[in-house]
Amino acid sequence: MLNMKSLKESIEYRKLIDVLMGDKDHADIVLYHGNVINVISREIYVADVAIKGKYILVVGDASKLVGPNTVVVDVQGKYISPGFMDSHMHFESSMLTVTEFSRLSIPSGTTTLVADPHEIGNSLGPIGMKAMADECSVVPNHVQLQVPALVPDCPTLETASYDVTSKDMEDLLNYPNILGIGELQGFSNAQHVYNNTPEVIDDLVASTQYAKSLGKPVDGNAPDLFGCDLAAHIIACGGTCSCHETTKKDECVEKVRQGVYVFMREGSTQRNMAECIKAVTEEGLDSRRLILASDDMVAEDLEKKGHMNDIVARTIREGVNPVEAIQMVTINPATYWGFNDRGALLAGRLADIAIISDLNNMVVDAVFIEGKLVAAEGKLLIDLPTYTYPDSCKNSVKRGPVTEKDLEIAANGSTATVRAMEVIPDQNLTGKMEFNVRVNNGVVVADTAQDCLPICCLERYGRNGNIGKAFINGFGLKTGAFAESIAHDTHNILVVGTNYKDMMIAANRVIELKGGIAVSNNGRVIDELALPVGGLITDELNGFEVSAKIAQLEALVKNELGCKIHAPFMHLSFVGLSTSPDWKITDFGLVDVNNFKILPAVVE
Amino acid sequence: MLNMKSLKESIEYRKLIDVLMGDKDHADIVLYHGNVINVISREIYVADVAIKGKYILVVGDASKLVGPNTVVVDVQGKYISPGFMDSHMHFESSMLTVTEFSRLSIPSGTTTLVADPHEIGNSLGPIGMKAMADECSVVPNHVQLQVPALVPDCPTLETASYDVTSKDMEDLLNYPNILGIGELQGFSNAQHVYNNTPEVIDDLVASTQYAKSLGKPVDGNAPDLFGCDLAAHIIACGGTCSCHETTKKDECVEKVRQGVYVFMREGSTQRNMAECIKAVTEEGLDSRRLILASDDMVAEDLEKKGHMNDIVARTIREGVNPVEAIQMVTINPATYWGFNDRGALLAGRLADIAIISDLNNMVVDAVFIEGKLVAAEGKLLIDLPTYTYPDSCKNSVKRGPVTEKDLEIAANGSTATVRAMEVIPDQNLTGKMEFNVRVNNGVVVADTAQDCLPICCLERYGRNGNIGKAFINGFGLKTGAFAESIAHDTHNILVVGTNYKDMMIAANRVIELKGGIAVSNNGRVIDELALPVGGLITDELNGFEVSAKIAQLEALVKNELGCKIHAPFMHLSFVGLSTSPDWKITDFGLVDVNNFKILPAVVE
Repeated sequence: MLNMKSLKESIEYRKLIDVLMGDKDHADIVLYHGNVINVISREIYVADVAIKGKYILVVGDASKLVGPNTVVVDVQGKYISPGFMDSHMHFESSMLTVTEFSRLSIPSGTTTLVADPHEIGNSLGPIGMKAMADECSVVPNHVQLQVPALVPDCPTLETASYDVTSKDMEDLLNYPNILGIGELQGFSNAQHVYNNTPEVIDDLVASTQYAKSLGKPVDGNAPDLFGCDLAAHIIACGGTCSCHETTKKDECVEKVRQGVYVFMREGSTQRNMAECIKAVTEEGLDSRRLILASDDMVAEDLEKKGHMNDIVARTIREGVNPVEAIQMVTINPATYWGFNDRGALLAGRLADIAIISDLNNMVVDAVFIEGKLVAAEGKLLIDLPTYTYPDSCKNSVKRGPVTEKDLEIAANGSTATVRAMEVIPDQNLTGKMEFNVRVNNGVVVADTAQDCLPICCLERYGRNGNIGKAFINGFGLKTGAFAESIAHDTHNILVVGTNYKDMMIAANRVIELKGGIAVSNNGRVIDELALPVGGLITDELNGFEVSAKIAQLEALVKNELGCKIHAPFMHLSFVGLSTSPDWKITDFGLVDVNNFKILPAVVE
Repeated sequence: MLNMKSLKESIEYRKLIDVLMGDKDHADIVLYHGNVINVISREIYVADVAIKGKYILVVGDASKLVGPNTVVVDVQGKYISPGFMDSHMHFESSMLTVTEFSRLSIPSGTTTLVADPHEIGNSLGPIGMKAMADECSVVPNHVQLQVPALVPDCPTLETASYDVTSKDMEDLLNYPNILGIGELQGFSNAQHVYNNTPEVIDDLVASTQYAKSLGKPVDGNAPDLFGCDLAAHIIACGGTCSCHETTKKDECVEKVRQGVYVFMREGSTQRNMAECIKAVTEEGLDSRRLILASDDMVAEDLEKKGHMNDIVARTIREGVNPVEAIQMVTINPATYWGFNDRGALLAGRLADIAIISDLNNMVVDAVFIEGKLVAAEGKLLIDLPTYTYPDSCKNSVKRGPVTEKDLEIAANGSTATVRAMEVIPDQNLTGKMEFNVRVNNGVVVADTAQDCLPICCLERYGRNGNIGKAFINGFGLKTGAFAESIAHDTHNILVVGTNYKDMMIAANRVIELKGGIAVSNNGRVIDELALPVGGLITDELNGFEVSAKIAQLEALVKNELGCKIHAPFMHLSFVGLSTSPDWKITDFGLVDVNNFKILPAVVE
């Protein structure tokens, strides 16, 4: 028996056959004589693309399909590509709703987004993920979610708002717009999880096997895993997985050899493509399992640089054939995800199309989604109403204000040796450093000369009130402090500063805002951004406004506070990520990621 | 909730993780230091393959997985490949049961067969296809069926035992071991079907959309289709399809460009690979959608030449990189079919493995299926009981004997111009010819000098008693006749001969046998083979016996009757195939395939 969706498609498909074979009906649109990017044959050649309703009729000679009402568009000299896919991204990193991210990304040719909502999953649990899945239904592009199987990533090292486990999978995986299971960080640090929390593996296998029984994909997350460890990770994922945490050529070669779909990450701060792509450009590996993904994009980059088109252009600059690079955002991900309705310009596929005027620089002139022209010359042509989240998603900060004393890091004597994470620009990995710093009345003093600053992580879900403490090098602040309720992946409140008073002021303002970013200096808040949805996203500003606001905040932190690293809020947020080496901070304290334990901030 | 299959796999997978990460358990088998054929990265390098139970543990350094009970096999200098898949084949062409075909094909490295049972579907309907699907469960290799959506192929031009339409799809597609919909011959001759029987298209679209709603694949069948016609065919298939009827380079290029998975056919009689592969070797197309398939194999070839290994060797000889050729029988088909449990040597996949001693000639030394050694040095090592079909599958011939008069082709005068199909060696296409021949007492006389012989097609299902008549060139018989109940695709009885009496004798013997092959000469049957299962398959002889028997029959037809074409029974059977050009014969008469009409045998 046909379901309604199949019945509808069978009627539409039957009409397409009538247009192709008969003489009574014609194409709605013919893109005339463009340079077709064929991602199946890996060729470029001149052909027409004929469209009827939301589907492609044929790519080839469409002259017999032109009727009196057909719109024929001359695209001679331009390139016709399938619309682009971002296979791994987090809306939360942009602080934008699905709608606002789409507003900024559609004009650059992105027509499909696969998002992992584990940030909102950490701060709001299933309620937040389902609210985001609901929003996916109202946007014109194709958006689906890969939900986490485990929240928090390291149950013994950090606190999230809600503990997602296999018990949640039946509910989540059968919810509309939820595609499968997202990045399996719970088994990234394979040997340590195996040795210390094997029950996590049992639970993950139950989740991934359930997803597999539904035919749903599972994403891996396997930084620095090789050999048997990588094999175990792949098996924990159900036997087929991706990894977007591959940073070195050898690691990329190993993962491709072991059948992992390598999502080469190339976002606003973490850029791994240039290294990974050497598996193709230097080692000559078959590229069918290489995919480009942004992971984390800030609004300003989306607005000013573009999205997947820009990432493809960078890939081309590394020496990859342009069609092969475009395969990495079209047919390769479509194959991984099982998106048989798109990803190539083929008869019967959805007419998701990017018209490109400059192939090497991936300048996108126009974008079609399901046969409809939705953007041209970088501007969205359709109405996209702002989307407001329900109140249930706006009360994620459940702790009271902190005192200076709460944040202070104690030590004996007049100096102390302290442990500091080293922020590495454009990586979510950190280094580990030790500094000798001054102690004043039993409290370690921030050392701006050495750039060794106190950092705290405040549990914000009302579960235990933990405050984790450590030091950090790399921001270079000379005065003031800043705080945010974005702290991968549990999204407690992180605050870094040159003194405990400004740290307290910034942190307390974030608490008052019920989530957001606050910058303080000389005892007062000097700027802020509220992020009411789960403490991560604003549904009060549009994409352009967020882009401008973040630029303003970043300029302030640079100019007023002396910060020397770009994208300071994103870099700060990643020092909370307890699954990527070497040292990270959670509400439990300083995490030695490789050894799966908590270290004191002060060396004893 | 986990189903039982998933629960079982999750327990087995959990054990694999223990072996990989822990130190209490070990691999069952380690293939030590072989040349691993990596069909993902398209490389060959030295590595171990470790196996536990039915799964691969890891490909790489397996030294830490070797325990006291691990069997370590030295395969240094040999090649370790994933087992091979035949993606389109008909058991009926070999006259063998699934079991007997497997007996002959497993030692050559074939571990997966996707069979289209449309022959038995024509002669027995759903009962026959389900009986074959039942047999798939008892063999050690992986066998699944792609059932036809339409039987007969051309409802207005031929008669089968049963009319399969969309009404049968729910029943068939949900039956165990049925994978999807087989070759869509009903819409091969696209423009003619559209013009003459558009209701066939409605019905096919209903079937293919239903399959799509179940996530099940649909095979196309698009000989000589290009442009809009090919696009319409693809859409009728549901948007993604294969084609195993591609014979020319340009046609292969067109199909790959349109996203069709091209199954390059390379069976016992029809060989299209050498031409199709030029799309890769001359045009440089991405080969990920190219797949090798046998379509029709005779038992003798399986026994003496091999199966997919031989086809891969021939492909290598056309200048294709060996790993790329092996991709065409492993990862490429696995991707098309959605077989995520095999097709590559990867952690967590089934350990279906071929050990190869000579890569260019694809000499297979040993074969593992699901971790078990099943064949070595060309010999099956496991017990494979013969399989007997139920009585319901053994009564497909339901017509009484014919008289000479029934078969005679009438004409006026002393000579006549007659229409003859031209048999083309190793193709299922025919040419079309006309001959001037002698007429004796109102009956056209066979002309052995010109090689213009009468041919009849006898409806055998008791539905209408039709006898179609025409002439044929190419067999070169000098005496006698032969008949068979194998006549693609409806499998009525075909008989060709040098005189009507021997034709009657051969045809009547086939009727008496309830299906099979009979050779007659000088008024008597001189040899025969009963094919009791649907008139197509024997479950009374094993694979080797069938191979010998066919060789004996072919030698007889060659030596006693003067036949000049090899594989005469297979060539005869294909002149019934009403979907492939130019002229064919059915129980309705001589079919002008391109014009979808019946032509008289004698030109008026």
